[in-house]
Amino acid sequence: MRGSVRRVLRGLAGRAPWPQGLRGAPEGPRPYSSNAAEAPVVRTRDRILTLQSMNPQVRAVEYAVRGPIVLKAGEIERELQQGIKKPFDEVIKANIGDAHAMGQQPITFLRQVVALCTYPDLLDNPRFPQDAKERASRILQSCGGQSLGSYSASQGVSCIREDVARYIERRDSGIPADPENIYLTTGASDGIFTILKILVSGDGRSRTGVMIPIPQYPLYSAAISELNAVQANYYLDEGNCWALDINELRRALYQAKEFSNPKVLCIINPGNPTGQVQSRRCIEEVIHFAWEEGLFLLADEVYQDNVYSESCQFHSFKKVLYEMGPEYSSNVELASFHSTSKGYMGECGYRGGYMEVVNLHPEIQTQLVKILSVRLCPPVPGQAAMDVVVNPPQPSEESYEQFIQEKEAVLSTLAHKARLTEEWFNQIPGIECNPLQGAMYAFPRIHIPPRAVQKAEDLQMAPDMLYCMQLLEQAGICVVPGSGFGQKEGTYHFRMTILPPTDKLQLMLQKIKDFHLRFLHDFS
Amino acid sequence: MRGSVRRVLRGLAGRAPWPQGLRGAPEGPRPYSSNAAEAPVVRTRDRILTLQSMNPQVRAVEYAVRGPIVLKAGEIERELQQGIKKPFDEVIKANIGDAHAMGQQPITFLRQVVALCTYPDLLDNPRFPQDAKERASRILQSCGGQSLGSYSASQGVSCIREDVARYIERRDSGIPADPENIYLTTGASDGIFTILKILVSGDGRSRTGVMIPIPQYPLYSAAISELNAVQANYYLDEGNCWALDINELRRALYQAKEFSNPKVLCIINPGNPTGQVQSRRCIEEVIHFAWEEGLFLLADEVYQDNVYSESCQFHSFKKVLYEMGPEYSSNVELASFHSTSKGYMGECGYRGGYMEVVNLHPEIQTQLVKILSVRLCPPVPGQAAMDVVVNPPQPSEESYEQFIQEKEAVLSTLAHKARLTEEWFNQIPGIECNPLQGAMYAFPRIHIPPRAVQKAEDLQMAPDMLYCMQLLEQAGICVVPGSGFGQKEGTYHFRMTILPPTDKLQLMLQKIKDFHLRFLHDFS
Repeated sequence: MRGSVRRVLRGLAGRAPWPQGLRGAPEGPRPYSSNAAEAPVVRTRDRILTLQSMNPQVRAVEYAVRGPIVLKAGEIERELQQGIKKPFDEVIKANIGDAHAMGQQPITFLRQVVALCTYPDLLDNPRFPQDAKERASRILQSCGGQSLGSYSASQGVSCIREDVARYIERRDSGIPADPENIYLTTGASDGIFTILKILVSGDGRSRTGVMIPIPQYPLYSAAISELNAVQANYYLDEGNCWALDINELRRALYQAKEFSNPKVLCIINPGNPTGQVQSRRCIEEVIHFAWEEGLFLLADEVYQDNVYSESCQFHSFKKVLYEMGPEYSSNVELASFHSTSKGYMGECGYRGGYMEVVNLHPEIQTQLVKILSVRLCPPVPGQAAMDVVVNPPQPSEESYEQFIQEKEAVLSTLAHKARLTEEWFNQIPGIECNPLQGAMYAFPRIHIPPRAVQKAEDLQMAPDMLYCMQLLEQAGICVVPGSGFGQKEGTYHFRMTILPPTDKLQLMLQKIKDFHLRFLHDFS
Repeated sequence: MRGSVRRVLRGLAGRAPWPQGLRGAPEGPRPYSSNAAEAPVVRTRDRILTLQSMNPQVRAVEYAVRGPIVLKAGEIERELQQGIKKPFDEVIKANIGDAHAMGQQPITFLRQVVALCTYPDLLDNPRFPQDAKERASRILQSCGGQSLGSYSASQGVSCIREDVARYIERRDSGIPADPENIYLTTGASDGIFTILKILVSGDGRSRTGVMIPIPQYPLYSAAISELNAVQANYYLDEGNCWALDINELRRALYQAKEFSNPKVLCIINPGNPTGQVQSRRCIEEVIHFAWEEGLFLLADEVYQDNVYSESCQFHSFKKVLYEMGPEYSSNVELASFHSTSKGYMGECGYRGGYMEVVNLHPEIQTQLVKILSVRLCPPVPGQAAMDVVVNPPQPSEESYEQFIQEKEAVLSTLAHKARLTEEWFNQIPGIECNPLQGAMYAFPRIHIPPRAVQKAEDLQMAPDMLYCMQLLEQAGICVVPGSGFGQKEGTYHFRMTILPPTDKLQLMLQKIKDFHLRFLHDFS
């Protein structure tokens, strides 16, 4: 096909604009002409890289958090800028956990340390507190040539890995953490993808099965698709505050064994998009299950600082694993993940994160360092930001008071908005919302009338995509349909962040209520 | 196997430390005990993730630039710190193009802009020049919530992509560049890997073949291995200053067609590790070849600012493609790459870079944005650093003079060290070195006596690995064996950066000379 097109073109093109005799090509440049009148008629040949020829695993990837709804939101924003009239003045983007974009201010101390590392001339500047200068100097001491511009070790800057290990020890009541088991990453996504990449193997029925919660954060389904692994869904129990039910986990595992080799179990705690915080007992059950069934555990704990319900507490998988005794702590393989993007700091743009591995075979640690070294190192400014997160100002230090004040302000506002959102949603007929125990999202269940479901089917669209698209077009609110995260057949949801400032959040909830009632009415 | 081990363990373990009745597990934490005397005897079970069970494509990856030599160098450094006596006081690391680690100072203006973006309180600080403040303000205006901590668009911050497009237009004598065709990346490696990932498909003999130069930068072989594509080697002509010979390209293509579907041609210009700068004619020939044979072009142009020979000039593939006329410029698919890590700035740790695509099918651009969006965005501080590289101070601006002075100082020193290195090597009997026309490396050919080759064989080691390992152990100099980059059968090389300060470089060259003569003598 390509060949024949090529021959036709040669026949049609007449004198090619570049000499046929290769050796006769002039060394000097030809003037480039943008004058269309001078240009010969040019046929476009078939492209080499097309939807048909591309990597089918990449083609199969879906990622709703930045999918069609978000592209449409961008279009509408451009139309608003051009002065096109809409029933709203701005698009409120509640599709992604992007705190600073929603007006949250950076933590002063974190930015001071990173600025000092960036431009060490500031180290003698009296406007910067001494504790920030000390941290910056310490990080720079650990960087090649004392510069953030040097490659770090592929595993991350050594003193930052030490700080991460000490942070984990404090968090986990003294259970030891080894800096050699810490890997700094380009955000948590990078760490999760890397460890999945190493885990995946096999063909046909021996392909690696990866168990993920439904609803899930779509990084997981995207990575599984890209890596040609098998996605094995276990459903969280919406009727029980999105709790993980061990019997459902068992059902999912046995089903997955029929067509794959399930060997990885992914947990998101606190949940994204579902916001539940797992009980200690539930975590023990999951660990026992992994131990019994020979599953490698991936614990996505990026929302570990985002717990709002009084009755809930964050327990790390690492800590529970060790407290269950050496039979577990010496055997269960675990990788857990943290990030600079969430918590109270919300530093998404820095792409900072870490992964801690437990019981990873030494040969696999060598492999991990090797594969990380191909990308050389995680961004060093993000590593510096991670350092502040794990090594914040101490009570005796100059910046402590302001740091704690800023941190508490962010977290208490989020807790307030979590309650507000839950209350609002549960007042709207046809919307039900579980408590937002943690993380940054509401994932309310929405009633979609049969006529709307029918219309969506006619449009070859998921019903909650239709709902969210209309919410965007009619009210300027950008949320992500539940179908992008997965949900029980016949149920519909959307994910909305609680990050907008309180007044804007309230306005948004009011607009959603108005829209929802109109939607129910229109399709009744 | 796992099952039987588990049964044995259950039998042996006696009372498991965690209750067998799952529902009976206590909610409260158990005290963690690190007292070995209290702990029961614990057997280690087979691990889930092992060399045998892991992803075989990841296992097959090799990456010499941070391989065994570099691990050994780290060991030796630790021994020196512990006071262990060696025939040298420090390890000189010339294995990786890491300028700041070798003492190169950051470009002041770049760091000022990034520091201002990081900590905008500094925008009213009189120590920072106005032009740096203006650039920082402009970048922040384009960031969500005016914060580097927000996710950017997956393709990169819009105003930075605009600046990249204008930079390319200036570089390429006015040939237009569209910001929509620019993708900011996490260093060039990330962009190269991403586009290869999309390009690769097929099984067995239909697997995608990727043509790469030999010697190559091992990112390419690593990515090809990880993506399960087929590596098709074309050999650069060492006898002709490492030039690319189009007949060799044709030979390699036809050979590759026998066992794969070759559809990608990778070019590194200026060359890494070989340092040659391609002539305009050579680039025309390559483009014509790609056009004729239906190959997607990848142009790795990260050393575009690093050209030292008076007789050489950098020509971008994009520019030559357009100057060859519309038959080419409307049809040949090209992705080209740049980075903050090399040039005169050497900001490796920031992981900044961009990719420009030409003639990419619009559907593929959509796919590209989708797959990039799974990782959310490139690090925003690295994007800001990239902005300064493509939008440096102008003659009318306050920072211009200092900027130009710093830039020229770095580049002229590199040019001097390139000449110095070439001259030194060519004075040593048994070493031959092509001119270092560009990039940051020497890749001298070394004579290894037959007895040394024999010894390496006995040790199951590449002969140049033996050479480099002895160079490290005896002289404390860390360079990478040619076998890590690929070389013609029976020839031996190493790659050495020219980044150490001139006096240290001279010392290093003297030490290499002494070592080499001793090596020849020992194995004669």
